[in-house]
Order: sequence, then C-alpha cells, then structure tokens
Amino acid sequence: MKQWKECTKEELSAMRAEFASQYEALKEKGLKLDLSRGKPSSDVLDLSNALLDKLDSWRTEDGTDIRNYGVVDGLPECKRLFSDLTGVAPERMIVGGNSSLTHMYNTMALFYLFGASDEPGCAPWGKAEKVRWLCPVPGYDRHFSVTQDMGAELVPVPMEEDGPDMDEVERFAGPDPAVKGIWIVPLYSNPTGAVISEEKAKRLASMKTAAPDFRIFWDNAYGVHHVWEAHKAPDIFALCDAAGNPERAVYFFSTSKVNFPGAGVGLVAAGPATVKRMLAHLKMETIGFDKTTQLRTVKFFGGSAENVRVHMAKIAALLRPRFDLVLETLDREFTGTGILEWTAPKGGYFVSVDTLDGCAGAVVARAKEAGVTLTGAGATWPYGKDPRDRNIRIAPTYPGVDELAQTLELFAVCVKLVTVEKLLESA
Amino acid sequence: MKQWKECTKEELSAMRAEFASQYEALKEKGLKLDLSRGKPSSDVLDLSNALLDKLDSWRTEDGTDIRNYGVVDGLPECKRLFSDLTGVAPERMIVGGNSSLTHMYNTMALFYLFGASDEPGCAPWGKAEKVRWLCPVPGYDRHFSVTQDMGAELVPVPMEEDGPDMDEVERFAGPDPAVKGIWIVPLYSNPTGAVISEEKAKRLASMKTAAPDFRIFWDNAYGVHHVWEAHKAPDIFALCDAAGNPERAVYFFSTSKVNFPGAGVGLVAAGPATVKRMLAHLKMETIGFDKTTQLRTVKFFGGSAENVRVHMAKIAALLRPRFDLVLETLDREFTGTGILEWTAPKGGYFVSVDTLDGCAGAVVARAKEAGVTLTGAGATWPYGKDPRDRNIRIAPTYPGVDELAQTLELFAVCVKLVTVEKLLESA
Repeated sequence: MKQWKECTKEELSAMRAEFASQYEALKEKGLKLDLSRGKPSSDVLDLSNALLDKLDSWRTEDGTDIRNYGVVDGLPECKRLFSDLTGVAPERMIVGGNSSLTHMYNTMALFYLFGASDEPGCAPWGKAEKVRWLCPVPGYDRHFSVTQDMGAELVPVPMEEDGPDMDEVERFAGPDPAVKGIWIVPLYSNPTGAVISEEKAKRLASMKTAAPDFRIFWDNAYGVHHVWEAHKAPDIFALCDAAGNPERAVYFFSTSKVNFPGAGVGLVAAGPATVKRMLAHLKMETIGFDKTTQLRTVKFFGGSAENVRVHMAKIAALLRPRFDLVLETLDREFTGTGILEWTAPKGGYFVSVDTLDGCAGAVVARAKEAGVTLTGAGATWPYGKDPRDRNIRIAPTYPGVDELAQTLELFAVCVKLVTVEKLLESA
Repeated sequence: MKQWKECTKEELSAMRAEFASQYEALKEKGLKLDLSRGKPSSDVLDLSNALLDKLDSWRTEDGTDIRNYGVVDGLPECKRLFSDLTGVAPERMIVGGNSSLTHMYNTMALFYLFGASDEPGCAPWGKAEKVRWLCPVPGYDRHFSVTQDMGAELVPVPMEEDGPDMDEVERFAGPDPAVKGIWIVPLYSNPTGAVISEEKAKRLASMKTAAPDFRIFWDNAYGVHHVWEAHKAPDIFALCDAAGNPERAVYFFSTSKVNFPGAGVGLVAAGPATVKRMLAHLKMETIGFDKTTQLRTVKFFGGSAENVRVHMAKIAALLRPRFDLVLETLDREFTGTGILEWTAPKGGYFVSVDTLDGCAGAVVARAKEAGVTLTGAGATWPYGKDPRDRNIRIAPTYPGVDELAQTLELFAVCVKLVTVEKLLESA
C-alpha cells in the first residue's frame, strides 16, 4: 500500500469522498458507545460478585471486631495478602479504603501541608516558591490532575518503550531543587502499556537530585493485570534502599481493577520515615478505614496471593479478545498507510495511538458527533494540551466485543477522514 | 453530709485510711477495664449485623452499577435518606465513606491548601501568618487534634449548658481576622451532653466576624443519638442563610454510631459555593467512595428515616441502663460532698465530671494503676492541657453493665482517695 502522504490531490479527494460516505452511514446508525475510560466491563465485575455475599464473621485473625473503631493502618491479614502479591513489606504499608487515587492525593496534600521529610531543606511544598513535577507523556490524566490541583508546574518528559527518557529526567531533576518528583506507572503504563526496565528504575532510584525530598510516585495500578504473558515491575524499594535513598519511592496499589472499582482497597507504601510521617497525620484524620471491605477482600481470596493470580487470569481471558480486536483492527486498517502509529501494550488497560500531527482533536470530535465517546484528545498530556495534537488513548475494556468492533470501525473511519482532510489542506 | 472541705485533718486522715484500703482491695481484683473511648458495645453493634448480609443487587434506583467507578458525591438514595433524617438538603451534601472525621480533616486541609472561599481576603489558610480556632471546653479531643495538626492556635472558650459562651466567642471572632472558625457539637456535645440553644446558634450564624471566611464546623455526630427524650439541633443552615452568611456552616454527620464505626458512611454538607469548591477538588482525589457500604446502609433501613429512628431507639434502650448507672453512682457517692460536679447529659455518649482543682490527673493515674483506663485527664482541652486539672470524660457505652459497675466503684474510690490526699496537703 502507498503511504498516504505520497498520494496525489486527486487520490486524496477520492478517498475523502469514500470515507465521508462511510462516516455518514455509521453516523446514521445512531451509536451510543463509550471508549473513554479505563473501566472494567460487567463480565469482569461478575467474577467478583462473591464479595457481596454475607460476611460470616466480623472477627479478624487476631480477634479484632471489624465492626468497631480502630486499626488505622489496615488489617494485618490484608497487608499480608498484599505483601505476598506485590513483594512490598507489610511494615511499609498503610491499607485504606477506596481508592489508591485518594492515597496519592492525600500523600501529595501531606507533602504540601507538612513537607515530605524532616531533613534539612525539606520545607512543606506548599511554602515553596515553585514546585515542578515530571510527567511522562503520554501519561495518565488523573495523575496530572492531582499535581495540577496542588499548584505544581507540570513538566512533560517523553515516555519510551521501557520507561521515561531518563536523560531528560536527569536534566530536570539534577540541577533544579524545585523538581520534587515524578509520576511512574511501572507496569503496563497508562496509556502506552510499557513496562519500565530495571535499568531505568535503577537510574530513577539512584540519580542525584537537587531536591533532597525528590519523590517517585510509583503507581503500580496494573501490578497484577497481565493480558498476555506476565511481566514484573522492578522492586523500586530495593533499588532505592541500595542507592541510599530509602525515602525516595512512594508506592501505590489497589484492588479497584482486581475486584470492584466501586469498593476497592487502596494501598500506600513508603520508606520507614515516610510511613511514620503518614501515620502520624493519618491518626488525626481517621480512626480507621472501612474494615469490612478489607476483610471481605481477604476472604474472597482465601488470603492467598495465588488465588488473586488465578482470578486475574480469568480477567485476562476476558480482556484478551478485546485487546486482540483493537490490535487486529489497527493493523488491518492502518499498517502501511503511514498515518497512524500505535503501541503494542504488554498488558494493562489501554492502547495508545498517534495520528499525524494536528489530527487527534478532530478525530475525537468526529467520533463524538457519531455517538462514540473517546478519551479527550490531549488528556494524556499535562493541562490537557498535546502540543502535536496527535495522541489518543483507546480504552477497550468496558464495551462488549461486538460494541467494541463497531466503535473501532467508526474510529478507523474518523482517523482516515480527518487525515485525508488534513493532507488535502497542504496538498 | 458534711462538705469535705470542712472536714478536720483528723477526719480526712481517717477517710484516707478507709479509701486507701478500699482502693487496695479493688486493685487486688486485677481489673482490666476500659472507660476511655466512645465506642459502641457488642450488643449495640449486633443490632446492625444484617449490614453484613448478602447484598442482593448492585444496582442503584437509577440503574448505576455500584461495583464500578463513579458517583463521587454519593448515591442519590443515600443522600435522600440522610436528608429525611437530618433535614439537610441533598444538594448541599457529599456522602463519602468511613468516616466523618475524615471529612472534617479533609475539609480543613482543603481550606488550608486552597482557601475556604474565592471572595476577597480569603487566601489559603496555609498561607496566613496565623490561624486561630475556637474550641469550646470541655470538648472533643479529636476535633482539637485536627486543627492542631494543621498548625492552628487553639483558643479555648467555655462550654455552657446551652452551648459555648457566646460573649467569649464574639470577643475573639469579632475583632481578630486570624480567628477562622469554631468546633461545635450541637446535640449532646462531647463530653458534657449539652444541646446548643436556638439563640446561641443564631448568634453563631449571624455574629460579625473579622474573618470573611469564618467557618462553623458543625459536627452533628449525635444527631439521632437520643438516650432519654429526643432533642433536636437548631437548623444551622437556615440560620446562616437568614443571616446572610450562607457559607458559614460546614455540617458533618455519620453512621459510625448508628451502625458500625468500622464501616460507616460519612457526610459533609455546606453552603452552595463551598460544596462546589469541595467537589472541584474531590474529583481530583477520587472517582468515588465505597458505594457498596452506602447501598448496604440504605437497604438496611429500607431507605426510611423512620426506620433509623426505630433502630436508634433500640440502641437507646441498651445505653440507658449504662447512663442511669453512672448518674446514680455519682449521685449516691458524691452528692453533698462538694468534691465532684457532673453534667446531666441530655443524650449522646458521655458524662463529664469535674473534680476539685488539681485532682483529675491523679484520679486517672490511680485508676490506671488498678487496671481501669479512663480518658486521659486533659484530653477534653486543647493540647491535652486542662489548666485546672479537673475534667474527666466518662464513656460508659462500651463495657457491659456489670463491668461498668465495677469500673464506677473503682472510679469513685479513686476520686475520694485523691481528693482527701489533696485536701490533706492544705489542711
């Protein structure tokens, strides 16, 4: 197939007519589909319905009555389950309620209000003249929103196939004490599905930073969410400890996409001094998170990490056809055209695509007009502004396979139509 | 009976010998009892065990799947139930997870990070040179801790039988723009059990304050927790609206002491601009609180506020004998002695007692030595410092009646022993 950029004006005009008529035909179908958010589908949620069953005991293994006050840092058996699953030591953990995003926001708020450390030069970030935060792009909009809400200046750094561009990261964090941290999704990053390499994780853990309180917000959101073969995130705590930076990483995990996003158990873990710091303030904030959800979660899995893995394999079996359909469709429709690039995610929840420059916003608008909601163009960039207007996040997990096929058909037509229009502008 | 202050040195010495021997005898029993915290007892918790039953539907009345993401401000049917129960309009509400203390802390954090208002002169409290906060005393230690944690200077104002000493409140809030707010437990205050009068609530709502962003943190923690006859808190929103201060009150409520403290549903409500402000930031913090607990709560009560009242009457029937025992014991042991004063609470969770000056700490220490944990002396004051060292909070809800009787017997002996020792010092 000829690369579209090499097409003549006449060829492009003919293509435009064809795609416009395809688009109008699809539009007439009156679709009403949503490919915008990383939500689990009903068939995935159904796998966890036993969580709603009667809880036959309100006692923990140590006899604590979960109906009453107390246990601010989370049930021991819940910590143990998560420790077996993630490799994070229970002593580093605080297990809370729904959701890990709340842990991230609250940790950030804590650092803004009280500082990240008592070491010299570590004033509350809210008192600093400027806080800058590194945001691998494309990345997760809700991460960016947390730091934006606090008032940090968001600094994009390119995301590569094995993690962020570390030269760029070091170029910012090395000399500038205002650079206080970075967002990292180590496994199956949102939206590219990349897995960070051991080497890059090691550089993150050990690099010199001008800020003594530089923090890696390590959101292992997809830590057990394999789609094809299983990958593993590097052990960031071990790497930070080895580098003499034991407080650098703050780790997040949750069962939102393991069981129910509407009733998950969120986890935050950190270095010893940071956990102590968090707990000191957390004790002022609550007398305990919802312990029934914690105990239900433990009982659902019989306290066994292996059972979580078995459960996640069932979820993967439901997700694989959806991902395969996306990748097959993109391959069939766009390979050789030179108008669309996409990631081959290793797992997780998303596929990231890049159109030609200046086309993403128009594609999303066209799809919307025909009844299909895509993640907003620019959402994968700080402030919602993709400077090249080319990245779109495809979230294939929520619709059923048939709906997904319809959505992708429309998506492909929108990309083609918008692209030929763009090419015609300069033809 | 002769007032103890009028006793001779010889009489006091004889009394000391008697109480010391009573104390030693009780100490030898090796008690291990806890009268320190306002925790519900097992028999009270048992009334809510159906909350742990199977949840037979995961759909809300409008079809929302509670297992999935969304509904950041709380389920509509949950808001309606709370509105029927409290009289607060659903539009003012954000219904969250466990617990209302978390709502208080987060609201305070929000005001510190982002300010309480966009009006002129309303900078983030964290940027202010000084923030002062009014604390009716005796009061609730966890309230004081929240403001202390944020760095506010805590200013005690006397708590009276019908609410705080409003002359004092106005004396501080009127001229000083650093005074940003006050803690109020309107109904059955912690620990005196007082109910704020309509007149004082009206003064709070309408008084002139130097700070344009003065806030009343109105913690209706015991809003439906009658022990004897039912009382009602004034409608603080109506009073604030009428006074032209629609954003002054922030209202809190929860089901922690209705159902389970370990799995409650917390509620925050506020003026229209403040709710909007809260939601704008809350959307960055979470994609939704635990909706299963919200739906379970609604289903437990069949969505009916009247059923909540019936449920609370059952709890009251279990609490009354405990409260009666405390009040009867205090009356029998101390009426006419002139060495102890106590409140006649109208409801709630506590009885507040005042020893002679300088005795409370010693009483708590003596009780502890004999195996009975009381709330720490001073806990009802900011910074844990009761300047006259006389107030002790008695929390009779957790032990069974028999245990409570033993505890009160020891408590009475400790008060007597410590008091005669004190009187002997100056005899």
